[in-house]
Amino acid sequence: MGKVRVAVIGSTGYGGVELIRLLLRHPHVEITSVVSSSNAGESLTDGFPHLQDVLPVDRLDAVDPALLSSKADVVFAATPSGISSKLVPQLMNAGLKVIDLSGDFRLKDRSAYELWYKHEAPEQSVLERATYGLTEIYGNQVREAELLSNPGCYATAATLGLVPAVESGAIDPTTLVIDAKSGVSGAGRGTSLTAHYSEINENFKAYKVNNHQHIPEIEMVLSDRLGKPVTTTFTTHLVPMTRGILCTMYGTVKDERYLQDEAWIDLYRQYYAGRKFVRVRKKGTWPATKEVWGSNFCDIGFSADPRTGRVTILSAIDNLVKGAAGQAVQNMNVMFGWDESAGLEGAPAYP
Amino acid sequence: MGKVRVAVIGSTGYGGVELIRLLLRHPHVEITSVVSSSNAGESLTDGFPHLQDVLPVDRLDAVDPALLSSKADVVFAATPSGISSKLVPQLMNAGLKVIDLSGDFRLKDRSAYELWYKHEAPEQSVLERATYGLTEIYGNQVREAELLSNPGCYATAATLGLVPAVESGAIDPTTLVIDAKSGVSGAGRGTSLTAHYSEINENFKAYKVNNHQHIPEIEMVLSDRLGKPVTTTFTTHLVPMTRGILCTMYGTVKDERYLQDEAWIDLYRQYYAGRKFVRVRKKGTWPATKEVWGSNFCDIGFSADPRTGRVTILSAIDNLVKGAAGQAVQNMNVMFGWDESAGLEGAPAYP
Amino acid sequence: MGKVRVAVIGSTGYGGVELIRLLLRHPHVEITSVVSSSNAGESLTDGFPHLQDVLPVDRLDAVDPALLSSKADVVFAATPSGISSKLVPQLMNAGLKVIDLSGDFRLKDRSAYELWYKHEAPEQSVLERATYGLTEIYGNQVREAELLSNPGCYATAATLGLVPAVESGAIDPTTLVIDAKSGVSGAGRGTSLTAHYSEINENFKAYKVNNHQHIPEIEMVLSDRLGKPVTTTFTTHLVPMTRGILCTMYGTVKDERYLQDEAWIDLYRQYYAGRKFVRVRKKGTWPATKEVWGSNFCDIGFSADPRTGRVTILSAIDNLVKGAAGQAVQNMNVMFGWDESAGLEGAPAYP
Amino acid sequence: MGKVRVAVIGSTGYGGVELIRLLLRHPHVEITSVVSSSNAGESLTDGFPHLQDVLPVDRLDAVDPALLSSKADVVFAATPSGISSKLVPQLMNAGLKVIDLSGDFRLKDRSAYELWYKHEAPEQSVLERATYGLTEIYGNQVREAELLSNPGCYATAATLGLVPAVESGAIDPTTLVIDAKSGVSGAGRGTSLTAHYSEINENFKAYKVNNHQHIPEIEMVLSDRLGKPVTTTFTTHLVPMTRGILCTMYGTVKDERYLQDEAWIDLYRQYYAGRKFVRVRKKGTWPATKEVWGSNFCDIGFSADPRTGRVTILSAIDNLVKGAAGQAVQNMNVMFGWDESAGLEGAPAYP
Repeated sequence: MGKVRVAVIGSTGYGGVELIRLLLRHPHVEITSVVSSSNAGESLTDGFPHLQDVLPVDRLDAVDPALLSSKADVVFAATPSGISSKLVPQLMNAGLKVIDLSGDFRLKDRSAYELWYKHEAPEQSVLERATYGLTEIYGNQVREAELLSNPGCYATAATLGLVPAVESGAIDPTTLVIDAKSGVSGAGRGTSLTAHYSEINENFKAYKVNNHQHIPEIEMVLSDRLGKPVTTTFTTHLVPMTRGILCTMYGTVKDERYLQDEAWIDLYRQYYAGRKFVRVRKKGTWPATKEVWGSNFCDIGFSADPRTGRVTILSAIDNLVKGAAGQAVQNMNVMFGWDESAGLEGAPAYP
Repeated sequence: MGKVRVAVIGSTGYGGVELIRLLLRHPHVEITSVVSSSNAGESLTDGFPHLQDVLPVDRLDAVDPALLSSKADVVFAATPSGISSKLVPQLMNAGLKVIDLSGDFRLKDRSAYELWYKHEAPEQSVLERATYGLTEIYGNQVREAELLSNPGCYATAATLGLVPAVESGAIDPTTLVIDAKSGVSGAGRGTSLTAHYSEINENFKAYKVNNHQHIPEIEMVLSDRLGKPVTTTFTTHLVPMTRGILCTMYGTVKDERYLQDEAWIDLYRQYYAGRKFVRVRKKGTWPATKEVWGSNFCDIGFSADPRTGRVTILSAIDNLVKGAAGQAVQNMNVMFGWDESAGLEGAPAYP
Repeated sequence: MGKVRVAVIGSTGYGGVELIRLLLRHPHVEITSVVSSSNAGESLTDGFPHLQDVLPVDRLDAVDPALLSSKADVVFAATPSGISSKLVPQLMNAGLKVIDLSGDFRLKDRSAYELWYKHEAPEQSVLERATYGLTEIYGNQVREAELLSNPGCYATAATLGLVPAVESGAIDPTTLVIDAKSGVSGAGRGTSLTAHYSEINENFKAYKVNNHQHIPEIEMVLSDRLGKPVTTTFTTHLVPMTRGILCTMYGTVKDERYLQDEAWIDLYRQYYAGRKFVRVRKKGTWPATKEVWGSNFCDIGFSADPRTGRVTILSAIDNLVKGAAGQAVQNMNVMFGWDESAGLEGAPAYP
Repeated sequence: MGKVRVAVIGSTGYGGVELIRLLLRHPHVEITSVVSSSNAGESLTDGFPHLQDVLPVDRLDAVDPALLSSKADVVFAATPSGISSKLVPQLMNAGLKVIDLSGDFRLKDRSAYELWYKHEAPEQSVLERATYGLTEIYGNQVREAELLSNPGCYATAATLGLVPAVESGAIDPTTLVIDAKSGVSGAGRGTSLTAHYSEINENFKAYKVNNHQHIPEIEMVLSDRLGKPVTTTFTTHLVPMTRGILCTMYGTVKDERYLQDEAWIDLYRQYYAGRKFVRVRKKGTWPATKEVWGSNFCDIGFSADPRTGRVTILSAIDNLVKGAAGQAVQNMNVMFGWDESAGLEGAPAYP
């Protein structure tokens, strides 16, 4: 059987080059088109010399649905939010399977989208065709997806860390606080003072406090799993590092049994049984972003505190892999019926 | 009038060399002895070449109370916890004023000390002579101190950030969550895997979750100000940077008025009126560790969230300055009746 | 006597805020105007919250020579090269003493300027009134300066490290290789991919190889001191850190005596006797950028190698202090007859 | 055909876990033993949680040649220098193929080894059986090796960058200066002040100037290729990053033709034709360590300078991959007749 042909829109961004890195190792696909709206016609490796001699295609294609449908079977759209909402329907109409990393198709509620994203939502009919690709939770739907909406980086770390706690009733869902920290690559390759080296290095700070667009996404998932509305307090911080997200999450324990770490470990091991990319940590150890660097793993650990009646749940991912490109490849694997971990095997890069 | 003579015990640690940096700029003191238990007799600048040509004394003295009392009027003890408990009474008996940075004299409750610090507490009689030097809160007691116990770095950032909220009743004290992040210099100069470059760089992780010895210190201060016991959930994280602490703190608002940022800003501006080292940030902006780097400032900002009924309070300090050496100098200034900011003026180093 | 009034043009750049930090500690001056071409009318501390509550003036003035001459006695022009060449003559005509940090007045040879800087050189008559402010070498001229041209950051580290070797004849001037490394703050606060966090962090690379505009400046000084033309090979690299320059310099030893480190140490100690800001390192130790961080020091060390007949000379500075703002203040001190180190005393910040 | 069984001695070091990462992706081998002298009997993933759920073996074996010969066909010895010299002969006597990363078998001259390494050299008879595994240069010998001595990290970057220049006569071999910079992982996982986070972060410095043990290794290779003795000046620096080596190398051009970059690019492209892991950069661009991060590539670039008559050659590698584990796997591939790049394909991780 021939390989599945893939195109990567947004190849000149960090999500795009990470997709390329992962897809190059994938046994069932070949990259047949690298696409950029702003740099069409140029050489990708001129801008990214690390790809010299490893990439079968180098000339950047324009964002042209007809062209892409002649070259590819599936398209990864690593495009900014607000662009995908317009582009993706055209790609679908051209007969392409689409895996969208933009965020535009995550929220089913158009008014919530417009409130948090500050631009017009995609059309309702397209939204209804989109599947939210948090594979560990919604794997069955992913299998059927024609338009796959890849979860947000923070949302992935937070929901994988909280869903079993909320769904099982072990935690009081009115008490959830999520303190999230991210490396700077999440801000993308576009230059700004926020990502300027001398402003970030040897610095730690919060941003978008109570105002991040992943809040409604996290609450959508938790509410769906609980079956009633969940509200959370969510803070994002910038860490002076390139990759990695750690979420430290707090809630009041509802059942005394869950004042023991072991109960949490058991709960999560059962919940995620058979899910290769969630690793539940041993008692007394907690995740570190470096321990998932470059991999598709989400590591989760616990500290239940009988003194306060709260549990602290920690989850870590590589924001560019499980938080973006890796999860997108994982979703493609499920959509095509391949092994979920095809192209994503192996160990994180440490140190 | 002659200058006050100061000795620095623990000069070969990070707290010690930071004390030296600040004391060198102080108008009313002179450093007459640098002291080290492990390196007595050696040259301080051999180990710390950055001090070449700026330090009037270089040969390290042994830890000898009689010698120190002949050379100095006041001693800073930047010694490890467990050492100070034995040493400080001897220094006091030798007639020296002591500013202790070790942590051994912070907790008034000996059993709490032994529970969290895992070694024997100082004698009760010495504990009773110790003044807890959180100057902005306990300045009146500091003025009379003979043994000054300098607050912990995390405890300083957390309590300065929470005391007005708790004391005013604006926040529900049963709901407090403190998510703290620190640079690596807080771990000191002793080598360990925890502070090994390749383990820390491009990494973010939690440590001592629900188990840090600053928990009882924070709760002691908050309980004292509220007049009844306060319990908090407290997590510490390591940031890949050298200096800085940021605390992100959460609690449920008790009074609807405090669902507006302005109410918090007003409350804190009034509470800290006249306190030069607390800077309340403008609405919509939050502290960053780099903005206090090298200075004695504690910056505080707010985000009240009507959606969740919670407030997020953020505070930032330089752990080696306001969290250690700077606050110790500030306390000395108050003890000697000098301007609180003598030797501590000026701007943070940015970037 | 009243304080000398100073204005800082370019206050919203890194050189500008570092000037402000140093001038705030200066005993003989007061900052009476902060100036910005692009942000006039705005609040400086809105853009630089680290300056909150420490700066006597906050509203940014426009670049208006008449206004500045009414407010200030001396102006620091931390302006981009190509701007100063036009602006400085106007400031001088308005009666102001000017200390220029731009580079526009360093090269006496207009054609060399235009070759390396790629824009029009200042007028010859203005160039002739400019004094090159490498204080340790040209202190006598600095005393008389009306227009002081502050040396480049790389040029400062390289020339302080090489002048005694070249001037004494100890080194063969036809064999000089300068391998220079700088922190990223040297690139300024303007955003660009070159200074984008994720591109710099965990990366080391060269830039402008054989093409940096400090090459003719270094050669101008060395040629002047030797009395005949000197050519050097010079490479610049970006280090993933904010501040600091280290130059590693190589040359063939002409006199066998200089195959011993001691000979170099003696030579430099004598050459720089009485110069407070040059610190010659002990045998077998070499400078590190952290050991001069935040200070005006230039540390210099040596390794003579009988095996190869070459000497390796290393020099380190903080690019924003001795390489820019600190040296500018030092030059002001000399121009006004004050102690050379006024406002610049004390220890580097370590760690 | 069954997979070749490999054991990794020194699995608890950075070289060891990087070997494991690469071998896990290798199509022709399986890891059958992870070995540690100091932690035998313990779980590898307890110390390296990033390996949880990816490693087929976890319990650390003791360093026991008989045991290893029963479990493995080939052994990677990522052991400290001074240990391998004793251990490797025992492993060979037990019938194992050995790939040694220690440095003990690189220098053929026992007195040079003892001069630079400061311990006793291996026996001459064992040295004579060792093949120096700089594959791009000595691939023919590697094919026949029973004991493969893997090159040093600095030596790899320097010699791959210089050999074509020296061997072709394009450069004057009496003028070579190598200015090398390395990330901190090269110092290993053993804790020391040299690798202590707060000493390294925001710092740049030289170490072992004119005294590094890779000097004789570099000179051995260059002398061998030229056919007469070559002496070089070599400086090593520590960069505040984890991985990566960049060498900036200087020499006087002997033939006017080589005052053009194109001549260098042509020379190197021809010299390394067919060698997948050397990438010659385009004119006007130079290597960056991040562009080879996590990969086995050595990138090389040039700047010839007619002004000075010198050429600047830059080479970059990942010190843990091409400088250690990756080159070791490459050598295994050649020894077993597999494709040189088996297990090493794909793109560097960027950013």
